[in-house]
Amino acid sequence: MDLEELLNKPGEWLKGKGPDSHIIVSSRIRLARNIKGFVFPNKMDLKQSQEAFEQIQKAQAKSSILRSFNFLKMEEFSTLDKELLLERHLVSQEHITTSQGKALLLRKDEVCSIMINEEDHLRIQVIKSGFDLYDTWEIASKIEAEFAKNLDFAFSGSIGYLTSCPTNVGTGIRASCMLHLPGLIMTKRINRILELVAKLSFTTRGFFGEGTQAIGNFFQVSNQITLGLSESEILSNLAGVIKQLKSQEMEAREYMVSKYKLSMEDRIWRALGTLKSSRLIASNETLSHLSLLRLGMDLGIIRGLDTELINNLFIIIQPAHLQKIYKKKLSHQERDSIRATLLREKLEKISI
Amino acid sequence: MDLEELLNKPGEWLKGKGPDSHIIVSSRIRLARNIKGFVFPNKMDLKQSQEAFEQIQKAQAKSSILRSFNFLKMEEFSTLDKELLLERHLVSQEHITTSQGKALLLRKDEVCSIMINEEDHLRIQVIKSGFDLYDTWEIASKIEAEFAKNLDFAFSGSIGYLTSCPTNVGTGIRASCMLHLPGLIMTKRINRILELVAKLSFTTRGFFGEGTQAIGNFFQVSNQITLGLSESEILSNLAGVIKQLKSQEMEAREYMVSKYKLSMEDRIWRALGTLKSSRLIASNETLSHLSLLRLGMDLGIIRGLDTELINNLFIIIQPAHLQKIYKKKLSHQERDSIRATLLREKLEKISI
Repeated sequence: MDLEELLNKPGEWLKGKGPDSHIIVSSRIRLARNIKGFVFPNKMDLKQSQEAFEQIQKAQAKSSILRSFNFLKMEEFSTLDKELLLERHLVSQEHITTSQGKALLLRKDEVCSIMINEEDHLRIQVIKSGFDLYDTWEIASKIEAEFAKNLDFAFSGSIGYLTSCPTNVGTGIRASCMLHLPGLIMTKRINRILELVAKLSFTTRGFFGEGTQAIGNFFQVSNQITLGLSESEILSNLAGVIKQLKSQEMEAREYMVSKYKLSMEDRIWRALGTLKSSRLIASNETLSHLSLLRLGMDLGIIRGLDTELINNLFIIIQPAHLQKIYKKKLSHQERDSIRATLLREKLEKISI
Repeated sequence: MDLEELLNKPGEWLKGKGPDSHIIVSSRIRLARNIKGFVFPNKMDLKQSQEAFEQIQKAQAKSSILRSFNFLKMEEFSTLDKELLLERHLVSQEHITTSQGKALLLRKDEVCSIMINEEDHLRIQVIKSGFDLYDTWEIASKIEAEFAKNLDFAFSGSIGYLTSCPTNVGTGIRASCMLHLPGLIMTKRINRILELVAKLSFTTRGFFGEGTQAIGNFFQVSNQITLGLSESEILSNLAGVIKQLKSQEMEAREYMVSKYKLSMEDRIWRALGTLKSSRLIASNETLSHLSLLRLGMDLGIIRGLDTELINNLFIIIQPAHLQKIYKKKLSHQERDSIRATLLREKLEKISI
């Protein structure tokens, strides 16, 4: 598979479709599974990891659902291609840092990406745009069942699925939503709310997952507990928290608009002005402005923008994407310059 | 005279014409004169100031040159109108703070404005665009001569013209140039250079004269010494310093362009982007951006702008101008909003 193909359009999860997608960008399910009789990936030698590949590929070949997925060996990718997959949220940082014996099974629309031999033998990720945890779960569950037809998963009757890290033991499920919360940031309510979320045993991360900051006012909220609850309990608990966050965000936006309409409009239009005029722009600055554009679109202030374009910009202004799009290695300043050019092109028709 | 007329076009000094006007915005001569037999204005009672008015008006009526000037009593102006005159650099802050017994003689193109009963009975100001101290001096001198035909000036054979403040005694002349020095600011050379200028007995002030800061990267440099030198020595000394400043500024600009071309362009385009997109903007922020626009125009980065438009914007975005243009009293936030609207209108045709 040529990764260039991916550049032509954003992954499905960035389409800005699905319920409540103005605040809840995407819903994601991740299932961790391991194959009985194999040591966990961090203990595997090369031969064992090849054997695991073979078993997985056999299971894939027998499934009409999995057959169309691309089986991509991580070590065959250039560093740039691996960075591209990371920027698209298809693999983890760990999966690209040491890529030997690791692979990726990828569905073309990027709804499903399966890391092989990351922390666990299988890390099935399903990600969809909007607030749609149950549908996302159903897809993930169906894909897991396809593997289960031909693979024996490591499973204990008393505690459930066994995983490399004890925090995933049991259901092996991590469910999360990516939320856009500029209103809670502007009203400075965000910290208090995230503290409450943590007390309820949910985890918050930034746009690029574990260890990343909340750039662009995006937050990923996920379950922490994987043991002692059923999958549907986990999903319904998370859905409850997400709904709460959504209504808090809506309240915050209403408050800002009612109290500070003009200065909100000013900030939003200036963000567009900067994106349309700068000649050098760093990626973090871009993400902040794009976040305001998204808000401006949601509030009906800026017209003529579509969510898919803006969501896609969040991804394609990243370093690896820029270098793939412009087909060359770029220095830091060249990237800032080309990023600015790309933004001006993409936003050309939006008037300030 | 209706001050609304002034709003239609900038004063001659803002036309961006004349030698070296890309760096030396304007040249200004101010002559202080007092009428023999009258106490200085700060000691005058109302009757005496009226008598001075009469003598000056008589002299004006007898001169074909002065006859077309408008004789405007300061106390007949509203506060807003007085602020407007101040913003246009036609009167001093002192002249509008206590306006009783004070007047202004104004030539329509604003090249010459004469404050009556400010610190001295006559403060003849001539201001022209570009670097043209000698021509400016000639006009001032001719106007002074017209008054001298019919007024006896307070004069001492040994020290020259007598003035209310000893710093003006002698020639009564203050010559100055308004310079736009963004290059020296960007290269952080400005402080060192202004220290040198001060050591040579020249004074530096901001855009709005005494006690104002160097907003928009503008500096007024004037002679400090009025005694013991002839007018032509004073002018030629000042001209020497101004030429030095000009070449230092040009060097600084070249350095910036050669070392930091992209980031210079970025700053300049962003300034335009902000001016074209903001919905609330304060006057100091506007002046900084306009300064960068002027620089961008000088460096050939932004095309389609003309100096007269930009120079005029420096003046009309000021509070009194905005309120005159929009014909109503405006709160602070209303001004910021209307200023942004005005800027978007005026810069509509300039593409980013």
